[in-house]
Amino acid sequence: MHSGSTGHDAHAVEHGRELAKRVLSGDWRSLARAITVIENDEAAADALAAALYPKTGHAHVIGITGPPGSGKSTIVDVLVKVIRDQGMTVGVVAVDPSSPFTGGAVLGDRVRMQRHAGDAGVFIRSMASRKQAGGLAPATRDVIRALDAFGRDVIIVETVGVGQVELDIMKVADTVVVVTVPGLGDGVQTIKAGLLEIADIFVVNMADRPGANQSVSDLKIMLTLGGAEERRRRWKPPVIQTVATAGTGIAELWERILEHRRVLQADERMGRSHDRLRAEVVEAVQHRVGTIVSEQMSRNGSMEPVLAAVLRRELDPRTAASTIIAQHFK
Amino acid sequence: MHSGSTGHDAHAVEHGRELAKRVLSGDWRSLARAITVIENDEAAADALAAALYPKTGHAHVIGITGPPGSGKSTIVDVLVKVIRDQGMTVGVVAVDPSSPFTGGAVLGDRVRMQRHAGDAGVFIRSMASRKQAGGLAPATRDVIRALDAFGRDVIIVETVGVGQVELDIMKVADTVVVVTVPGLGDGVQTIKAGLLEIADIFVVNMADRPGANQSVSDLKIMLTLGGAEERRRRWKPPVIQTVATAGTGIAELWERILEHRRVLQADERMGRSHDRLRAEVVEAVQHRVGTIVSEQMSRNGSMEPVLAAVLRRELDPRTAASTIIAQHFK
Repeated sequence: MHSGSTGHDAHAVEHGRELAKRVLSGDWRSLARAITVIENDEAAADALAAALYPKTGHAHVIGITGPPGSGKSTIVDVLVKVIRDQGMTVGVVAVDPSSPFTGGAVLGDRVRMQRHAGDAGVFIRSMASRKQAGGLAPATRDVIRALDAFGRDVIIVETVGVGQVELDIMKVADTVVVVTVPGLGDGVQTIKAGLLEIADIFVVNMADRPGANQSVSDLKIMLTLGGAEERRRRWKPPVIQTVATAGTGIAELWERILEHRRVLQADERMGRSHDRLRAEVVEAVQHRVGTIVSEQMSRNGSMEPVLAAVLRRELDPRTAASTIIAQHFK
Repeated sequence: MHSGSTGHDAHAVEHGRELAKRVLSGDWRSLARAITVIENDEAAADALAAALYPKTGHAHVIGITGPPGSGKSTIVDVLVKVIRDQGMTVGVVAVDPSSPFTGGAVLGDRVRMQRHAGDAGVFIRSMASRKQAGGLAPATRDVIRALDAFGRDVIIVETVGVGQVELDIMKVADTVVVVTVPGLGDGVQTIKAGLLEIADIFVVNMADRPGANQSVSDLKIMLTLGGAEERRRRWKPPVIQTVATAGTGIAELWERILEHRRVLQADERMGRSHDRLRAEVVEAVQHRVGTIVSEQMSRNGSMEPVLAAVLRRELDPRTAASTIIAQHFK
């Protein structure tokens, strides 16, 4: 999220609106450019996001996560083919929070692109953690919105499931798919507790390996043990087996995703979306207030005496924060 | 960080101040209780932190991180013995961001405690990500401060080095030690770029294994390639070999830590501490403003029309945030 005076720069606003217009008209290159503007949090990002936002809310967002080596990318590739065969358009966002470089990700793009090259119904983009000052999850959310406004029917977000950032990214999805494989470490143990709670569908990939049935029943037991969350009242997460390299089970995965989409009743969807948007606004306020406070401190302004007292250990950071809020927030 | 009206509750303030007094008087049980208050962000946390803060700034904080299985815990155990042999007191904080449970960590405590049982010069505490609403890194920082105010000479923070949270935790340390072992995955590759940049000392543990010399020279090459940061001007991170299970190399590690402490010139230390405290105040302001905005939205207050417009897709979240700030932040 871009903040500060340049955000109100007339040229940047004009540029953002123009770019949004071209994205909404279906221009592929403008979409790629718009995503870069969002990723790099350029001056035009605010106006661009504002102009795209009213046109969002159409796409179904699928999150796919799992440990490295579980075959997520192959699943995504085959799933894209299944979805395209039904005439729907797809956007894919591959996020690697552990990498500060886009190098590997970009290479991955090229390898993938070969399969879907020339198919205007598939748009693939990789993201890494290099540039997103506001955080990778908020940037991913805005990239998904750009793809949504562009008119994609289905958007797939793929990430490696190990940390908090990945969990935050998965929270933007309507349907969360968690992938594991038989005999990977402790197998089911590799699925972090946080993921278990937000998963809507489990996939045991490489199900032709020994131990696949064991993994499935382990997962089912874990699901029984982990008390049902509110959102699970109408939906019991299925556990399905796939061999993505042979294409086996991916059609079933897609069926289950569509089923989950239907089961997500309108009111439930509204509730989720309400909670998410509320959290997003709060987060954006926090981010901008942080920028304002940080800038005022650097400028030796009204907050400097407070910071100086903290440095002299006369005032602790918590009390300093309360003081600043009392002085500046009404 | 505790926020909201209960933070000003007279009883909580009194309780926090009383607890701080007992911690400062050297009462071991009160220290344990104080850490729990901070961890759970209880009502007394603000007053407690405020009362402890003026007494901090004495301890040298060592951060130790590395991939799972690199023998960090053993290094910490032996290092504690080396430090105790020199008559200094030690506090150890073991942080596991990947675990939502304290169970495993607490078990680890017990195993460790046996070695140092009955030694009042060693205080060991584990933390997991279960309860810290304000984030694990800020909670760790406040726990370190409690140990510092209690009078510990050296505080060791140990964490598994895989994600952004671990990186944030390491940033609270004066001296960052990154541990690796020969032949672990791609060895040196397992050290994330972010860690490489903040490391002050590298340890190749299990150096009796094949490939140890290769790991050392790989690390040295990597250090040459990764352009020197500002803080490195006076300090070139050494790479040392240890066999922690046999105690080999840990005395050298301690020597290097002391050397780094000396090299961290007074002005440099002040600069780092200034930057960190500034960031901490900004973060605390963000956290509290987030709580205020979130509460006002839930109460159907002045922010409700803004949120309603976002839900109708008439207003995007970024513009909504700017509107709220314009209305409430002066």
